[in-house]
Amino acid sequence: MKRTLINNLKENEESKISGFATKIRDTKYMIFVILRDRTGSIQVSIDKANNEEICNQLNGIIAGSVLEFEGKMVLSEYVKQGGKEFLPTKFNCLSSADASPLEENANIDTRMDYRWIDLRSDKNQLMLNVQSCFVEGMREHCYKENFTEIHTPKLIGAASESGSDVFEVKYFDRKAYLAQSPQFYKQMALASGLERVFEVAPCFRAENSNTNRHTTEFTSFDIEFAYIDSYEDVMDFEEDLIIAGLTKVKEKYADQIKEYFDKEVIVPTKPFPRIKLQDLYKELEKRYGYKIPEFDVGDMNAETEGLAYKYAMEEYGHEFIFVTDFSKTKRAFYHMRKDEIPQGFDLIWRGTEITSGAQREHRYDVLKKQCDEKGLTKDVEFYLQFFKYGCPPHGGFAIGVDRFNMLLLGLSIKEEMFLFRGPNRLEP
Amino acid sequence: MKRTLINNLKENEESKISGFATKIRDTKYMIFVILRDRTGSIQVSIDKANNEEICNQLNGIIAGSVLEFEGKMVLSEYVKQGGKEFLPTKFNCLSSADASPLEENANIDTRMDYRWIDLRSDKNQLMLNVQSCFVEGMREHCYKENFTEIHTPKLIGAASESGSDVFEVKYFDRKAYLAQSPQFYKQMALASGLERVFEVAPCFRAENSNTNRHTTEFTSFDIEFAYIDSYEDVMDFEEDLIIAGLTKVKEKYADQIKEYFDKEVIVPTKPFPRIKLQDLYKELEKRYGYKIPEFDVGDMNAETEGLAYKYAMEEYGHEFIFVTDFSKTKRAFYHMRKDEIPQGFDLIWRGTEITSGAQREHRYDVLKKQCDEKGLTKDVEFYLQFFKYGCPPHGGFAIGVDRFNMLLLGLSIKEEMFLFRGPNRLEP
Repeated sequence: MKRTLINNLKENEESKISGFATKIRDTKYMIFVILRDRTGSIQVSIDKANNEEICNQLNGIIAGSVLEFEGKMVLSEYVKQGGKEFLPTKFNCLSSADASPLEENANIDTRMDYRWIDLRSDKNQLMLNVQSCFVEGMREHCYKENFTEIHTPKLIGAASESGSDVFEVKYFDRKAYLAQSPQFYKQMALASGLERVFEVAPCFRAENSNTNRHTTEFTSFDIEFAYIDSYEDVMDFEEDLIIAGLTKVKEKYADQIKEYFDKEVIVPTKPFPRIKLQDLYKELEKRYGYKIPEFDVGDMNAETEGLAYKYAMEEYGHEFIFVTDFSKTKRAFYHMRKDEIPQGFDLIWRGTEITSGAQREHRYDVLKKQCDEKGLTKDVEFYLQFFKYGCPPHGGFAIGVDRFNMLLLGLSIKEEMFLFRGPNRLEP
Repeated sequence: MKRTLINNLKENEESKISGFATKIRDTKYMIFVILRDRTGSIQVSIDKANNEEICNQLNGIIAGSVLEFEGKMVLSEYVKQGGKEFLPTKFNCLSSADASPLEENANIDTRMDYRWIDLRSDKNQLMLNVQSCFVEGMREHCYKENFTEIHTPKLIGAASESGSDVFEVKYFDRKAYLAQSPQFYKQMALASGLERVFEVAPCFRAENSNTNRHTTEFTSFDIEFAYIDSYEDVMDFEEDLIIAGLTKVKEKYADQIKEYFDKEVIVPTKPFPRIKLQDLYKELEKRYGYKIPEFDVGDMNAETEGLAYKYAMEEYGHEFIFVTDFSKTKRAFYHMRKDEIPQGFDLIWRGTEITSGAQREHRYDVLKKQCDEKGLTKDVEFYLQFFKYGCPPHGGFAIGVDRFNMLLLGLSIKEEMFLFRGPNRLEP
């Protein structure tokens, strides 16, 4: 008999169901099993007097095991679990579980040690599905807009940008490095004649820091496209992309996200507020008496990000805000500059920077000059070559998928990732 | 003025076009530029007598540069390029190219040194778009079938399976390794309660071999799903997945693939032929007088793969063939066995193995026994844990995206990848 999903069960129809037993309760006359599959849960009710064989088979089986029952679903006013119960005539244990080593209130580190058990909760299942759905929505938008998906190498020959925070790999008789981002290669794709590219892939950062939002490996949704007029085009596209992702999540999971995470899924309206950094500083000082420390002038710090969100909500009732006009000393050498101002932006959502983007400098001579200025020319010589033989004007950005989902659901990065990776965490 | 794509130009309508100049020809009275964007090419015809300024601006500009013209498209019976030409009134050089260092008949290694120029050909642009389209088709099928996309870590704490062919990473004060495949973690996802998962991500193999189909990094489309009855279910799903991918490619690119690669896109019919390895041996001996060397008995070698394809075409007129019933000594310890026969398969397409799949062993005790037998228990202790606390029966497979596209278009792996990686190749 083919398996029927619990949500698709029809009253009084002979069916086979299977899933994890989340609870098993043995009473005087009855055994009750709560069985869960990906669509929902149902109570399996076994009348001991008439099901001796099933009862014998169930002997010693505990919650966590994977079970299969054949029988019929019936409606019952006595059952809390949706007014339905399953009356089995046949049973099969697909996988017998040992007692779970994970206690209900285990701390996050223990939960990560047994992540595969930790993830079984309805809440965590939802979290993983929301992440998949958000990426699906964004990807659909990219396909619709005629983007080509590329796969750039993660093994690279030179430690790009700065050399710090880069993982070193033993590569036969030489060294390789793990790509911190596909930045250089997605730009190469545009020099190769593709006009619109995206990539969803892991990035690696050898940052020895333990915070709620850093990880040594994360999934980045990267965008780069050509023939833009300015970085305004890049922001416009990012608005559409995020709207596409959140629309999909809202349609499918808004109610469950409210129920399990107590968070609203708000599809933002266009355009998102945009403000120059200097104007933001003024607003924050005027409204909240906050003055940015000298050290951070020209950039944002965590406090500025938090207050920028507060400002966007107060002034525009908007969860997102683009901040532009950073200092060139604080931005990457490859950002295009106009009157010495980098043509880039950060996007703040719910108090955290979720993306950096820019129009890139595509003119070889200018790019080389900006690169010399930061003393990086030797490291990125191979990258400069991409611009020597023709390259259209272009720009792009990246969204950290994990950070986005973490903010959407109000979690820490450790709780959000399928398997978190940090300086002290490579297992399981 | 907004840019108009070349294919969307309307006769006599004031428009702006931009793209790479693929040819510039300066004659006595006219300058002709062939301009290409992602939708096509057009001849830009500049009458010298009436366009002195444009001619001055064009002075010194060579093919490879990125140019922008404003003007009108007109129909002209004298123009070979689709009977259309563009008459500009305004010109702008977006990026001025140096002379290309890449000669027309450069060998593959030189082409890879300047891969971003090499990729500009119509043929290579098509190749990249076909790859993207194939993955899109397969991914759509997964979403339709309620699969969740996961992102498993590529940095792992233990060198899984065998320890050979694994890249070692300097990870703060310890060592990490690069995942050779998401095998263990996609199985973990099923122990976590997700029932159907897929992942599209890089895999790393430290194989010091230079062939036409090996690379140290490649993109794998991985599938794993639970509550299967046997590995037949896994093969059934793979058939549907490949059909979905190829259908999408055929709809969009069949004519161009025929034109540029002289290859037919054939959407296979279901079911694909399936044969046991021992029966295949017999057929190959009977039909082609081929006897497998003692060393390879229980497995396939390159010659067997080639002949299996020949057999499938002759006997079934089918490009694909599943081969089953390999020897357990030749298959991974985690393949489920029935009467000592691994419940797995290889899929051969056009003479090459494109996928290995199986029902996995999900019962902890049996799995541990099979693992002990191969002497791997210590290495994969963390993996065995995934099966101790309940795990549904499941199976899966992986398709190497690059290898698939390479066979589809009749290329070597070096020609097919966006940026090839091999023992001697980490650049650009």
